[in-house]
Amino acid sequence: MIKKILLKTVQWLPILLVAITAVIRPAWAEATPESNAIAIDTVWTLIAAFLVFFMQAGFAMVETGFTRAKNAANIMMKNLMDFSVGSIAYWAVGFGIMFGTSVLGLFGKNGFFLSTANPATSEGLWQFTYWIFQTVFAATAATIVSGAMAERTKFNAYLAYSVCITAVIYPVVGHWIWGGGWLAAKGMIDFAGSTVVHSVGGWAALAGAIMLGPRLGKYNKDGSSNAIPGHNIPLAALGVFILWFGWFGFNPGSTTSGTNLSIAIIAVTTNLAAAAGAIMGMSVAWIRFGKPDTSMALNGALAGLVAITAPCANVSPLSAIIIGAIGGTLVVLSVEFIDKVLHIDDPVGAVSVHGICGAWGTLAAGLFAESAYGGIDGLFFGGGLGQFIVQLIGVASVFIWVFGTATILFGIIKVIMGLRVTPDEELKGLDIGEHGMESYSGFQIFTTE
Amino acid sequence: MIKKILLKTVQWLPILLVAITAVIRPAWAEATPESNAIAIDTVWTLIAAFLVFFMQAGFAMVETGFTRAKNAANIMMKNLMDFSVGSIAYWAVGFGIMFGTSVLGLFGKNGFFLSTANPATSEGLWQFTYWIFQTVFAATAATIVSGAMAERTKFNAYLAYSVCITAVIYPVVGHWIWGGGWLAAKGMIDFAGSTVVHSVGGWAALAGAIMLGPRLGKYNKDGSSNAIPGHNIPLAALGVFILWFGWFGFNPGSTTSGTNLSIAIIAVTTNLAAAAGAIMGMSVAWIRFGKPDTSMALNGALAGLVAITAPCANVSPLSAIIIGAIGGTLVVLSVEFIDKVLHIDDPVGAVSVHGICGAWGTLAAGLFAESAYGGIDGLFFGGGLGQFIVQLIGVASVFIWVFGTATILFGIIKVIMGLRVTPDEELKGLDIGEHGMESYSGFQIFTTE
Amino acid sequence: MIKKILLKTVQWLPILLVAITAVIRPAWAEATPESNAIAIDTVWTLIAAFLVFFMQAGFAMVETGFTRAKNAANIMMKNLMDFSVGSIAYWAVGFGIMFGTSVLGLFGKNGFFLSTANPATSEGLWQFTYWIFQTVFAATAATIVSGAMAERTKFNAYLAYSVCITAVIYPVVGHWIWGGGWLAAKGMIDFAGSTVVHSVGGWAALAGAIMLGPRLGKYNKDGSSNAIPGHNIPLAALGVFILWFGWFGFNPGSTTSGTNLSIAIIAVTTNLAAAAGAIMGMSVAWIRFGKPDTSMALNGALAGLVAITAPCANVSPLSAIIIGAIGGTLVVLSVEFIDKVLHIDDPVGAVSVHGICGAWGTLAAGLFAESAYGGIDGLFFGGGLGQFIVQLIGVASVFIWVFGTATILFGIIKVIMGLRVTPDEELKGLDIGEHGMESYSGFQIFTTE
Repeated sequence: MIKKILLKTVQWLPILLVAITAVIRPAWAEATPESNAIAIDTVWTLIAAFLVFFMQAGFAMVETGFTRAKNAANIMMKNLMDFSVGSIAYWAVGFGIMFGTSVLGLFGKNGFFLSTANPATSEGLWQFTYWIFQTVFAATAATIVSGAMAERTKFNAYLAYSVCITAVIYPVVGHWIWGGGWLAAKGMIDFAGSTVVHSVGGWAALAGAIMLGPRLGKYNKDGSSNAIPGHNIPLAALGVFILWFGWFGFNPGSTTSGTNLSIAIIAVTTNLAAAAGAIMGMSVAWIRFGKPDTSMALNGALAGLVAITAPCANVSPLSAIIIGAIGGTLVVLSVEFIDKVLHIDDPVGAVSVHGICGAWGTLAAGLFAESAYGGIDGLFFGGGLGQFIVQLIGVASVFIWVFGTATILFGIIKVIMGLRVTPDEELKGLDIGEHGMESYSGFQIFTTE
Repeated sequence: MIKKILLKTVQWLPILLVAITAVIRPAWAEATPESNAIAIDTVWTLIAAFLVFFMQAGFAMVETGFTRAKNAANIMMKNLMDFSVGSIAYWAVGFGIMFGTSVLGLFGKNGFFLSTANPATSEGLWQFTYWIFQTVFAATAATIVSGAMAERTKFNAYLAYSVCITAVIYPVVGHWIWGGGWLAAKGMIDFAGSTVVHSVGGWAALAGAIMLGPRLGKYNKDGSSNAIPGHNIPLAALGVFILWFGWFGFNPGSTTSGTNLSIAIIAVTTNLAAAAGAIMGMSVAWIRFGKPDTSMALNGALAGLVAITAPCANVSPLSAIIIGAIGGTLVVLSVEFIDKVLHIDDPVGAVSVHGICGAWGTLAAGLFAESAYGGIDGLFFGGGLGQFIVQLIGVASVFIWVFGTATILFGIIKVIMGLRVTPDEELKGLDIGEHGMESYSGFQIFTTE
Repeated sequence: MIKKILLKTVQWLPILLVAITAVIRPAWAEATPESNAIAIDTVWTLIAAFLVFFMQAGFAMVETGFTRAKNAANIMMKNLMDFSVGSIAYWAVGFGIMFGTSVLGLFGKNGFFLSTANPATSEGLWQFTYWIFQTVFAATAATIVSGAMAERTKFNAYLAYSVCITAVIYPVVGHWIWGGGWLAAKGMIDFAGSTVVHSVGGWAALAGAIMLGPRLGKYNKDGSSNAIPGHNIPLAALGVFILWFGWFGFNPGSTTSGTNLSIAIIAVTTNLAAAAGAIMGMSVAWIRFGKPDTSMALNGALAGLVAITAPCANVSPLSAIIIGAIGGTLVVLSVEFIDKVLHIDDPVGAVSVHGICGAWGTLAAGLFAESAYGGIDGLFFGGGLGQFIVQLIGVASVFIWVFGTATILFGIIKVIMGLRVTPDEELKGLDIGEHGMESYSGFQIFTTE
């Protein structure tokens, strides 16, 4: 029945013959409630996917804004290419590993190259919709890594690990939690991917930053740390606004259904958590550094967004504010800790924003979930410790898998092709060294800084 | 009946178990025409809200592009934080004042903290949808003020008045016109907020610019005015494109209904008014200054958009062009008048764009309204003076309320915490003074300019 | 019947009286499957139009990023004004020529000034929807020309030819292929406009670049070419991301129907072609120049997008990858050929990206079309040479029409008002010469470069 409706609906709109006097439209008279509901869900999911795609621009602007002018073209190139090679890799391999028929709950084994998507069937058309939505998520995980490894990574090494993350490391986690794997079976809550997307990116970023070592001039012999200021704060801020905008596709879009009216609640919780994160990022920085640093407020907003991503469909507006506020607090403390105590050089704070706050948000789902919103009660709402423990198992397992495999991956790349540019190239900038160009031709720039 | 349908529809999509071989989707077979119509309206309103949110990025880019490099991080911070504190303030207080049960048509008295939004009911879900849409509007009013007070306002003073505008000053006007208040009862037309949003922002900006006084070096002893050129015209232009893009959510989205097909007409009138505004902004500047100034063309586009915001659903395409063209003319003359005659320093022309053109657009609704579009005839289409007088009363009342309360507010802030940074800080830039950072590290910039 | 439903649906939502205690919404209970299907198609088409509008920002950023700082305000002005004058011109003239009742299959003869769009009928409302969608397409064709003629064209000449392209040159082609004209009658495939939009822009750009001549200092006496690097690669990259984002409105939106589920397939083919184009742009540049140039990868992505625009609804994902990859290859070779062999100075590669790859994509539809996707088989899928020959006729005819009329147009403008600024103005920059301003006030810039 649904098949029949679909087939009718999918008949090609003879747009080539359209004229004012006889505008030919789809056969509206043949529409049914079922066919309309399918169309609403498809339209919603596609538009959400487009918004999430646009987040690539946001990540690119944030990363370049927070780093130096001499590496801006390299950063643009990385962000363009991780999405491009990622799209192809996820089409060929990743989607099948993530959503194919499960092998022991660990990974999928079919559906590669979109081979099971038949354009003549309802199921096939839905797979195309679902694929584009999942592709933009996969690319998000990959692009997070870029920021932590900025200003010193060889470009060909970057391409190599981008493919591996999108094709294998990310889809395995996706299978566990979203693809019917072993964590899904345990009932883990990660609605839009605090863990699946953000922590995966964050933990891979951590492995990468450690394997690379800090940028030249970052740490002094006495162990103290030098701030290396970003070259374009308006671009970084634009990037955060774009990311916040795109997150309205990321979280509400993860229903993959516009007929599921919880999209409204998710938009509200997402927005309030981001706002609270920005306020706390600003406030904590104000208290610790004496002035409200713009970068920390921007990272606070992202922290709130990352934190609410897992529980966005399961918590009340007030809980969303608390979760976001704690995210905004955590990110400032974490950036300081990773920089000044651990001496790991993460130029844009990617590990703190995506790894730490992704883990926090995932755990928060076990604490703040309320059945009135998503049908599950967490620890603070009478649901006991069970859900929290499941969340904890999820967070820990994903850390072990991602940090482990990423470390091995970066190790292999280091041996085979080298991971880091030469000190001379790093000083002159990767724009010239890796790409033979400069980003701001005509401007007077202090390139030795 | 509707409740029952909703409850069914809102059942959680068991996305965690999704796999290619058995993609589980919402129960499409259970959809009804009613449930689909609700979904279409919800999807449309949410997407419109996302577009309006993105206007925050547009305002940030316009404001920073038209001002100096030494204040760019401060401007980013203001635009990020007015949305963030505004979201929380509007959730806690503003939404209730605007849409709560009316007290004498003056303000609402309940619905604070989204306390009346029950996620299990149709009405509750619609309130979540409506809240996110209204929140992005409230934040727009607040952010307009930022531009007129740029480059000299203390950051903590900015935070304080942002909260007050979003929590009280704006929602009271909103209640009068959109919340069932006394101007709504008179039948005032302000479809998407030329007055509710833009004039409120513009008149508060006027009060703020007067209370602050001009930037150092803006006016000479002989009363002549110095142009202080913006530091990044491409960013300002990007901001205008983003605002135009977002306005397609602002105006057509204000139906809060995708099943209301007037959204198509509103998109057309909005676009034509903006185009006409840009053309006239350019042309008038060309005539007056001898060359077509890019800033004036950009402001002309915004003027056209602001002007069409009130009448967008009530006028023909040709009327929209006339309304936008007059807006684009007015903005150039107004910017000159406010600067050179009144000697009020409004760095980005916010008072002219949003205050003056907001008032013009609101009055224009009383002149150009045609019943074929929105059911009401204005003065030029046989409707008599009645509607125009209602519009005039609305414009005047809102000016008195906003300019009055904003002046008092800024006065109180001036006494308690001070409104303006020190001259030394102003010269060095607010980025360093207020936030301890610079926006364009590594670039050679003439910071004394 | 449909009319009746529409009339009911279009009743004005009494939003002015909305209050929390009694949120008045459209009469959902009166919705029918037909009215919902119409609403879904309207919402989809409008949102797609908004995304395509946003591409104007993308074109502006790409063009300014790839050219010099001294012309940035001029480029912003051109991009703002071509859309503005284009919107008015297309409303007054273009739409009627494109979609009016056909005269011998060559052009339309009525529907000017949206005069046939009655807001009280179903057909009229659809015309408003269709007009805004077509307007943003028309403006895209006009704005492409801007890039090839950058940094040396007089602003008033630019305005003049923008109007002519949007009002006449583009709509005639549009009528041939999309408006029921002679190429539509032959069954030419150009789903979203590789030829209608992109080649039209590209061939007009070619004529313009030839008529203008190269920028001062571009070619040496020995015939060798100097690279003139762009001044802001992050902005150019942002522009490409915005364009890619907007293309999701351009291609899937060209169904003008959200109930036509092929939108999902089109989103997939569009994305994969862009990714493949970027990868090949990068790879070919890497091979030819020794380093992976960021500009070429960015242009490669655009090349893939332009190429897939015609066949996006008719080919498989794998074919899309091949089509995009060939596009990305062609663009690098074409940019080199046009610059180094033909000595035509096209600062941003507009002729190669839009003209050459537009032609390639249109031909590719005749080769790679598969009936499983769009009902037609191309040469490689057993459909014979027929479709390919139709595509070839279309490509050739459009080239002759556009290149011919554009050459005449530029010739007339040259005689009447002059096409090119003075050498002195070109050296100082068009920002000062044409607009009396600078784009980056306060920054140290080498303006003689």
